[in-house]
Amino acid sequence: MKEQTRRNFVAGAVALGATATLSATGSDDKSVASYPLVHHVFFWLKNPDSKEDQAKLIEGLRTLGDIPSVKEIHIGVPASTEEREVVDNSFAASEILYFEDVEGQNEYQAHSIHTAFVENYSHLWDKVIVYDAIAVE
Amino acid sequence: MKEQTRRNFVAGAVALGATATLSATGSDDKSVASYPLVHHVFFWLKNPDSKEDQAKLIEGLRTLGDIPSVKEIHIGVPASTEEREVVDNSFAASEILYFEDVEGQNEYQAHSIHTAFVENYSHLWDKVIVYDAIAVE
Repeated sequence: MKEQTRRNFVAGAVALGATATLSATGSDDKSVASYPLVHHVFFWLKNPDSKEDQAKLIEGLRTLGDIPSVKEIHIGVPASTEEREVVDNSFAASEILYFEDVEGQNEYQAHSIHTAFVENYSHLWDKVIVYDAIAVE
Repeated sequence: MKEQTRRNFVAGAVALGATATLSATGSDDKSVASYPLVHHVFFWLKNPDSKEDQAKLIEGLRTLGDIPSVKEIHIGVPASTEEREVVDNSFAASEILYFEDVEGQNEYQAHSIHTAFVENYSHLWDKVIVYDAIAVE
């Protein structure tokens, strides 16, 4: 960050009384880099208004946490944040799976719990988008 | 989960020698529900091949961790996982911000560090997609 820009940020934060967060370590305190590989998946249902199908899908997603290489799991539904043009709140369920590395993600893809999940629950969804991201240093 | 389905999962896992993961607590051990609200953001650059612009954007994303209501942050780039039809690896950078609740996310949206980020870095991106998800119990 350019020094001038940083000073502007600091000045802005001081104005809001937020100095305590601007420690020397900064945002490094907040990383979740112990599991750097995140596998984001968003699901859209064939019956988007069916709460029953949504619940079934979530039941299936919960099983994925039993796969050994999955280190953390977050299963979600759209949050009631402000509606903005860039926000897509049309999905029925989301998951974030955390892995130590790409190999862990490969193990997950091939694991019988994952293949059983696809076999038993894929009839529920119409569309899936996956984003795999690796933490930057 | 239906009992028959569960038995099939267990049988499959046993076949792979993965019984140790099927404890009574199951995937509950792996939740990250202390920060239930996740704000996923994916960025596509105007100059998608510019490593310099990607680095600048990441520099900007790092500043967001200094916002008090941001409890954890994960900044990523596409991982080298297998190319599959459902995987979108065309984004330049991703962030996951973790909040305690919707109010924390609202504070973040209004915070001067966030507005400065948009002001100073939005010229770099062509498209942004946001997904806000709240953990299911």
